[in-house]
Amino acid sequence: MERKETHASFGGEQEVWRHKSVSLGVEANFAIYLPPQAKTEKVPVLYWLSGLTCTEQNFMGKAGAQRVAAELGIAIVASDTSPRGVGVADDDAYDLGQGAGFYLNATQEPWAAHYRMYDYVVTELPALIEASFPVTQQRGIAGHSMGGFGAIMIALRNPGRYRSVSAFSPIVAPTQVPWGEKAFSAYLGPDRASWAAYDPLELVRTAKERLPVLIDQGLADQFLKEQLRPELFQEAAQNAGQELILNLRPDYDHSYYFVASFIADHLRYFVSKLR
Amino acid sequence: MERKETHASFGGEQEVWRHKSVSLGVEANFAIYLPPQAKTEKVPVLYWLSGLTCTEQNFMGKAGAQRVAAELGIAIVASDTSPRGVGVADDDAYDLGQGAGFYLNATQEPWAAHYRMYDYVVTELPALIEASFPVTQQRGIAGHSMGGFGAIMIALRNPGRYRSVSAFSPIVAPTQVPWGEKAFSAYLGPDRASWAAYDPLELVRTAKERLPVLIDQGLADQFLKEQLRPELFQEAAQNAGQELILNLRPDYDHSYYFVASFIADHLRYFVSKLR
Repeated sequence: MERKETHASFGGEQEVWRHKSVSLGVEANFAIYLPPQAKTEKVPVLYWLSGLTCTEQNFMGKAGAQRVAAELGIAIVASDTSPRGVGVADDDAYDLGQGAGFYLNATQEPWAAHYRMYDYVVTELPALIEASFPVTQQRGIAGHSMGGFGAIMIALRNPGRYRSVSAFSPIVAPTQVPWGEKAFSAYLGPDRASWAAYDPLELVRTAKERLPVLIDQGLADQFLKEQLRPELFQEAAQNAGQELILNLRPDYDHSYYFVASFIADHLRYFVSKLR
Repeated sequence: MERKETHASFGGEQEVWRHKSVSLGVEANFAIYLPPQAKTEKVPVLYWLSGLTCTEQNFMGKAGAQRVAAELGIAIVASDTSPRGVGVADDDAYDLGQGAGFYLNATQEPWAAHYRMYDYVVTELPALIEASFPVTQQRGIAGHSMGGFGAIMIALRNPGRYRSVSAFSPIVAPTQVPWGEKAFSAYLGPDRASWAAYDPLELVRTAKERLPVLIDQGLADQFLKEQLRPELFQEAAQNAGQELILNLRPDYDHSYYFVASFIADHLRYFVSKLR
């Protein structure tokens, strides 16, 4: 594991590391913010999953999360959004291939060899983080857009693994919207039965244990009606008795300016679930 | 003038506009953050000058300034760092030409036709902002690196025009360091007498009226010893009776992670000078 960047930030350290990932079969970058408290004690960790086209850089550079993480004494880990590098399949479109891993394990060619972001994010990366940095096993998970989908899907599939789950502008209904249908068709194949394991609407229906889900959604989001459709998750949650806090925010769009405006609430929400 | 971007941010608006600049002879972009208070009243404006390679985007996306600007009720305007576009001279190096305008009026070919960032930042842009947005004539100026140089130089040359001046990691001695010598030689020519009008060390010596200067400088800044040399400004300030608050910050580097960590102090400093 090699440290590629380190920057002092609000009394802590914003770092980027590169390591050989077993799940992905290639080298992968992740970003980690270590708050000042991590110099003397172990701290809880929030895992952040970014959206389409992003790398580990977007959240660390644009969300302004370090200030509140330093205040609260939590670490934040942001992975990349797909495998990358020589030999990794790709597509010219921004919403398939590199930068668009959708946090699942692909079963179809040419993706199956490296596109195993589900295993990477759920198992490999936390094991590495917990072995290498001064963190506790108190985990939270959150994300934006494709990463908001990833956070909700992963939390629903892994009861007991996370203390909190929250999302900005998540793709809650991937089997019913163009982004999700395209990605699931490519990575999982045409048999829609195989999609259910990654479908938040189906997972919320069948979950045995449930964390409450916090969602912030901007009402000026250009993808709201075609790709995001929070009302579908709201309806599924209601039918399943799933606790949902859905904050609809007038005027806000799909950008990191929205994430930055409300990220403090999501970090405080995670910390409120540690008690 | 055409609005190119608008994003809700902390209850206000982060916008980017494009206009035909008379000073620069080309179209130019600027970013403006309007806090929520600007919906009902006129607000003071801080002008931000960015460093080498930057555009109007860097500060608005990376500094995390909107939160405190919204709290304090101030607007922030960030210009580009040079003229750009078809017919504008350029150089392959990152530290000359487009992205490296050094906030001066060039007198030498091929730069003289468009490189007039001094006139643009001091006169044209504030006139446009004050005619077009709900702002008062209470101005502050601040910047980073090349832009920290610009802020200090412009404030010293224009007594009464700004309520406050502050800088992160400024190039305080451009006539004595490689970045400044290269740029001044190209834009102003080999006669060093012509450089004095843009030299903070000379300006601080001869200033008739002086604002106090606030500087934050990281001690892990990779450019500290060769390009920034804050001790030269400290010495000149001491000799001239110039008030200087020089905060030397262990561990911080030259990046926007440093700016983000202390930008709140600079915004509060500006507001403290409005009373």
